[in-house]
Amino acid sequence: MRAAVMRGAKLVVDTLPDPEPGPGEVLVKTLACGICGSDLHALQHADKLVDAARTSDVPFAMDPSRDVVMGHEFCAEVLDFGSDTRRSVAPGTRVVAMPLVLGAKGVHGVGYSNEYPGGYGELMCLSEMFLLPVPNGLATEHAALTEPMAVGIHAVAKARLEPGDTPLVVGCGPVGLAVIAALRLRGAEPIVAADFSSKRRALAERMGAHVVVDPAATPAIDAWRTHARGPAVFFECVGVPGLLDRMMTDAPRETRIVVAGVCMEDDRIRPMLGINKELSVQFVLGYRPDEFADTLGAIADGRIPVEPLVTGKVGVEGVAEAFRTLASPDEHAKILVEPWRS
Amino acid sequence: MRAAVMRGAKLVVDTLPDPEPGPGEVLVKTLACGICGSDLHALQHADKLVDAARTSDVPFAMDPSRDVVMGHEFCAEVLDFGSDTRRSVAPGTRVVAMPLVLGAKGVHGVGYSNEYPGGYGELMCLSEMFLLPVPNGLATEHAALTEPMAVGIHAVAKARLEPGDTPLVVGCGPVGLAVIAALRLRGAEPIVAADFSSKRRALAERMGAHVVVDPAATPAIDAWRTHARGPAVFFECVGVPGLLDRMMTDAPRETRIVVAGVCMEDDRIRPMLGINKELSVQFVLGYRPDEFADTLGAIADGRIPVEPLVTGKVGVEGVAEAFRTLASPDEHAKILVEPWRS
Repeated sequence: MRAAVMRGAKLVVDTLPDPEPGPGEVLVKTLACGICGSDLHALQHADKLVDAARTSDVPFAMDPSRDVVMGHEFCAEVLDFGSDTRRSVAPGTRVVAMPLVLGAKGVHGVGYSNEYPGGYGELMCLSEMFLLPVPNGLATEHAALTEPMAVGIHAVAKARLEPGDTPLVVGCGPVGLAVIAALRLRGAEPIVAADFSSKRRALAERMGAHVVVDPAATPAIDAWRTHARGPAVFFECVGVPGLLDRMMTDAPRETRIVVAGVCMEDDRIRPMLGINKELSVQFVLGYRPDEFADTLGAIADGRIPVEPLVTGKVGVEGVAEAFRTLASPDEHAKILVEPWRS
Repeated sequence: MRAAVMRGAKLVVDTLPDPEPGPGEVLVKTLACGICGSDLHALQHADKLVDAARTSDVPFAMDPSRDVVMGHEFCAEVLDFGSDTRRSVAPGTRVVAMPLVLGAKGVHGVGYSNEYPGGYGELMCLSEMFLLPVPNGLATEHAALTEPMAVGIHAVAKARLEPGDTPLVVGCGPVGLAVIAALRLRGAEPIVAADFSSKRRALAERMGAHVVVDPAATPAIDAWRTHARGPAVFFECVGVPGLLDRMMTDAPRETRIVVAGVCMEDDRIRPMLGINKELSVQFVLGYRPDEFADTLGAIADGRIPVEPLVTGKVGVEGVAEAFRTLASPDEHAKILVEPWRS
C-alpha cells in the first residue's frame, strides 16, 4: 500500500506491504484521516514521546528507529476480516473507531505503532470490537472528526462542570475548538475563549464560544472576569511550558484548571500559587469508549458543528507539506489525508 | 505583654504594648499555642511568604521589616470586649478560633500580621464571630490542636473520597498526622503512610494509619501497591521541591494527588506524566469555618486522638530554641507555647 511514512524523523512516501488482519481484526481502507498536533510533536520529538509513555506505564510504545505510519483520526471502509471476528459490520460499511488495537501482539495505538499503520496509509487493521458504523447521511470528512472532538467531550467530562461555572478556553486549535464544542453541548454559558490567531478566533465563534478575545489586545483573564457568572473552570489547550504557571497566576480562588494541551517539555510551577488559592489541576488525555460513541452521535445529529473545521485535504504525497503548513496556526484547523487520492 | 517576637528574621523576647480590642473584637489571654511548620518557614523566608500572598490575592499581608508576633494554633481565655460585641462568651471562658480577624483595619491573619499579635504573646485580639467555646472537660493543650487538625479535615474533604479509595500519606509531620486522623475519621481503610522518622511513624500508627513504612527501606508506592484495595488518593504532606514530580511518577492512572505540604520554592513537573495518566492535583490550604468547628467537636468527643501529638511545652523564652529543635523532625510533633509560663 501507499503511505506517508515517518522514517528517521522525516515523512516520506513509500509503498509498504499491505497489512494483514490478525485474530479479532478487520482490514479497512482509509477514507479520510485528520492530521493531529500530536503527530507534529511526534515527528519532531519521537524519543520524548516514547520516553514519556514508558515512564507513565502507557501500555504501548513504538520504536522510532523503525517505520511508523501515523494517523489516528480516521474514517474507513470495511474490506475484509481476520480470524475470530463476528463479521458484525458488512464489507463496504463506513466506520470510525478508537485508534486502539487489542491484538495478539498486545495493545497498540493505531498510528503510534510499528505494527499497526495508521490513516496516513491506504490500509489499516482495526480491532472489530471498537468499530462504530457511520450513520447514514454523515459525510466521511465529518465522521473523521469523531476522534478529535471526543478529546473535547472527555476533557469537559473530567472538568466536573456545575451549573453556573464559567469556562475559559485558552488556545483555539483543534483541542480548544473541541472543548468549546463540548462545552456548548453541555449548555455552559458564557464560554470565553482566547487565541492569537484571527482565523482560530472565528472558528471558536462558529463552534459556540460566546466571547472570543485576542490576548494581544485583551488578556484572557480580563475577558473572563468581565463575563464570569460563576466559578472558574480554565482549559489549557495549548501545551507550552509556562502556560500552566501563567494560568495559575491568573486564576481566581478554587479555579479548576483542566490541562488538555500536550506539553512534552518539563514545566515550572509555583506551588504557593496553587496552595494559596486552592487550585486544582486535572490533566486529561483521550476519551472513554462511550464518550467516543457519544461524540459520533452528536456529530451525526448536528449537535457538534464540525463543518467549519476541515480546512484542507491532501493525498499521501501532500502530508509532509501539510505538516509544515500546520506549524503556522493561522492557516488551518484540520487537514484531512485521503490516501486514496492520486 | 511579654511575647516572642519575629524581628529581622530572628525570634527575640520583648515586652510589647498590650493589644486593645477594636470593634467586634475580644481581648483574650493565650493559654497555649502550637508552633507550626509554616512559622518556621516564615521566620526564614518571610519575604517569599509575603510575595506569594500578594501574587495569590491573599487579602492580608504583613511587613516583615516590622515586628510580628506569630502563633495561630491557640486556645485562649476571654478577658474583655471591644465595642460592637455581643459579649456572647463570658469572661473566663476558654475558646479556640480560626486565626482570622475581620476588623476595622481590614482582614488580618492572627499571627501573620503587624497589627494582630498571635499566640506567642500573652494577649491577642480575636474576632468575636469566630470564637468557639472549648467544651467542658477538653484539656486546653488538646483544644489548641484544633487548628492543625482542621487542616487535615479540610485536605481530606477536598480529596472527594469515594468508598474503596486507598490513601497514601507521604510525610507524617503535623500535616500528615492530621490527614491520617481525618482519613481515619472518614473510615478510609487501609491508610498507608510513609516517613523517614521512626518517631513520626509511631505517631502515624497512633493517629490511625494501618500501614506505615520507612521509605528508606520500602518505597511508599510499593507499600501502597501491596495494600491497595481501590483507587489511589495520594497526600503530599512534606512540601519540598521535587516531591510532586516523584509522586506523579509513582502514581497509578487517575490518581488524585492532594498537595497539603507547603512548598514555598518553585517546582518542576513533567506534564506528560500527568497527561498520560490523567492525574489530578488538588492544592489545599486551611479550612472552612464549619470544618474548624467540626474538628473541635471531634477532638472533644475523642474521635481524633490528639494526646500523642503534644511532645513539648515552652514559655516565650523557649520559642527560639523550640524552632531550632523542630528543624530536626525526629524529636517532636507539636511543641506548645504557654506564654504565661515564667
